[in-house]
Amino acid sequence: MKQVTCAKCIACGAETDATPDVGLCPKCGGVMDIRYDYAYIRRSINRQILENRKVFSMWRYREFLPVPASVSFPKLRVGWSPLYRADTLAARLGVRTLYIKDDGLNPTASLKDRASAMAVAKATEAQAGIIACSSTGNAASSLAGNAAAAGFETYIFVPGRAPKSKVAQLLMFGAHVISVQGTYEETFELSRAAIARYGWYNRNAAINPYLIEGKKTVAFEIAEQLGWEMPDYIAISVGDGCTIAGLWKGLTDLYQAGLVDRLPKLLSVQAAGCCPINRSFESGEPMEPMAEDTIADSIAVGVPRNPDKALRAIRESQGAAVDVSDGDMLEAMRLLGAYSGVFAEPAGAAGTAGVKKALETGVVPHAATVVSVVTGNGLKDADNARKAAGEPISIPPDMDLLVKALGHIAVPTKPSA
Amino acid sequence: MKQVTCAKCIACGAETDATPDVGLCPKCGGVMDIRYDYAYIRRSINRQILENRKVFSMWRYREFLPVPASVSFPKLRVGWSPLYRADTLAARLGVRTLYIKDDGLNPTASLKDRASAMAVAKATEAQAGIIACSSTGNAASSLAGNAAAAGFETYIFVPGRAPKSKVAQLLMFGAHVISVQGTYEETFELSRAAIARYGWYNRNAAINPYLIEGKKTVAFEIAEQLGWEMPDYIAISVGDGCTIAGLWKGLTDLYQAGLVDRLPKLLSVQAAGCCPINRSFESGEPMEPMAEDTIADSIAVGVPRNPDKALRAIRESQGAAVDVSDGDMLEAMRLLGAYSGVFAEPAGAAGTAGVKKALETGVVPHAATVVSVVTGNGLKDADNARKAAGEPISIPPDMDLLVKALGHIAVPTKPSA
Repeated sequence: MKQVTCAKCIACGAETDATPDVGLCPKCGGVMDIRYDYAYIRRSINRQILENRKVFSMWRYREFLPVPASVSFPKLRVGWSPLYRADTLAARLGVRTLYIKDDGLNPTASLKDRASAMAVAKATEAQAGIIACSSTGNAASSLAGNAAAAGFETYIFVPGRAPKSKVAQLLMFGAHVISVQGTYEETFELSRAAIARYGWYNRNAAINPYLIEGKKTVAFEIAEQLGWEMPDYIAISVGDGCTIAGLWKGLTDLYQAGLVDRLPKLLSVQAAGCCPINRSFESGEPMEPMAEDTIADSIAVGVPRNPDKALRAIRESQGAAVDVSDGDMLEAMRLLGAYSGVFAEPAGAAGTAGVKKALETGVVPHAATVVSVVTGNGLKDADNARKAAGEPISIPPDMDLLVKALGHIAVPTKPSA
Repeated sequence: MKQVTCAKCIACGAETDATPDVGLCPKCGGVMDIRYDYAYIRRSINRQILENRKVFSMWRYREFLPVPASVSFPKLRVGWSPLYRADTLAARLGVRTLYIKDDGLNPTASLKDRASAMAVAKATEAQAGIIACSSTGNAASSLAGNAAAAGFETYIFVPGRAPKSKVAQLLMFGAHVISVQGTYEETFELSRAAIARYGWYNRNAAINPYLIEGKKTVAFEIAEQLGWEMPDYIAISVGDGCTIAGLWKGLTDLYQAGLVDRLPKLLSVQAAGCCPINRSFESGEPMEPMAEDTIADSIAVGVPRNPDKALRAIRESQGAAVDVSDGDMLEAMRLLGAYSGVFAEPAGAAGTAGVKKALETGVVPHAATVVSVVTGNGLKDADNARKAAGEPISIPPDMDLLVKALGHIAVPTKPSA
């Protein structure tokens, strides 16, 4: 693995070998970051090589990933999600150019598949038998699915509030599921204690530095799908901070390897009812925990475990923080569905809600080119989709009743040819 | 469109021009079939050309599709779903080689996206403004999503029993939804009358012959993903008959164009509680309607509208009919999830349930190579997923209680390294 040099603490700068089971800093307990030899990567890869490559998944970018050649890639097809140019939606929002990156089309329907696929690769390298994590839902089901395909057992800790369909999904993947009657914070702490006790491979994103290395692949795809022309802004929903940190890691990887020549600004979009990272970014004060008061369960993280990497990503990119209400997210779900054909869960639509708000407040200029990442599929949360969607017209099978019902909405009367 | 010659009635043989609004046979009311000039196609395409093509969607196979070059392809990325080799699941089922084609990874999470994308292409060609259909759910949401992305309005008729998450999905796409308090048959008839009255573009698969032309792309992908080596069997769930008919059309297209040199046998898998096509196949008698008594709502079609093409497909392929119970499908959902990492809705798992049963009854030999098509994602039907999945372990956030709870299941005691 010549591309990787070491793991380095982002707090105290201590360096360790990049073994597959790297956790928090052995010296200060800080979060570790996997470091690369970009001179080596620059010699290994260029745009031409990538464009001729026939692997269409996150593993397309193997030169940037911390997986030795001896480890076979996990089986589920994660990544290479579509990037849609959304002109109609752009016009509705009042922005010149808008792209939607639909990461809800991953195997278990969220961006978290990128991290879980990486966890499976590293657990394979570590010769682990069992992988564990805590999650608000998407990390859980993605771990369960990716691990099942690769033959690993999983122990997964979810907070009691996780939507039923998300829990069902991971039970279907054969995971051992522990539903914790408490907050995400309490769920996380219980999983940490259990992982330490039982020696499971740790897929908690804020502890295992490799997971961000999986998430960063979304940046590679955006860049390549845009022909290596960086947008002005990338908007993404933020929960524990690992996803936006991964996005930024990928972008800076590309810059350091000479594949792109400028970097976009990041929009960190949090739920107004749970926005501790955005508050800290705006106030400049250390992060304070918040309640988890939002329908967007996937980003309802009152005590983010990785604020430092996230805050650094927003700052380094000269980005901005945008808080959106539950109503903003439900509206963004309707806009995404009706004008771009993409069905997002509330947290998945948060990025787009943030773009709308940032345009309204002048944070993003109307002439900008913006990418909004949809991080999870709306099918994961049917209850909130129904809240946003309203009800169908319900009638008995009778043409006269139908005509009467349709009378209330505009109906063309052009006869059939 | 030199590849298309005409539309031909499968009942009386009458031929018409292949205009974009072809419906049932103007002479006898039979189902029409789009016909091709295979000599022309043979000159236009070969394996080499395909393998070098960079389009990874159903439109990769444009030489086989009835869309003129002047029509731009719809925007959502439909098709090129993954084909997984599932060795662990194969071993559990007792078959030498098993592949899972996960068509639940389409944009609206079912194979029906292939038909809806084709409907959008043909509606574009027809310069229609509104598209309509009736559906048990998946055709509806796929039409709603694909049409929304392309800027069409939609009127969609669903039976009252359609799962809530499916209805929410299509409402989110901005569709006008009519929930009909009746059977699928009654829903279909009401949609037919409304389409005639209002002149909407008709996306009902049993009437519009182009939809099968979209569905057939699943066959092209299976063939190419297997390196043009046909499997012995392809198992697929059957509702109104259009999907298996489309699969067979694609397979025979490939054969006639010289891209494959043999054809697989088809396994037509229906729910035991609603299997009119399989009954007719086995008895040799004309099809009789049945009740719609199954949890697999996507294939609960008591009066299939396209039995002729489906029956012909099973017969011509020297295939077999397999009926599976609701319990068989729930078990197949668990097997697919736990041993291949694929989450299917009940109808989506029916194919795999059918493979299991066909192996047990000797219909399929253990030495066979089998492809099972998963036609829809399990997230579409969380209620049934929960039925199959069971419940998580629910505990307060307390380590002692966790250890006690895990005492009931095997837990390794190897300490952390």
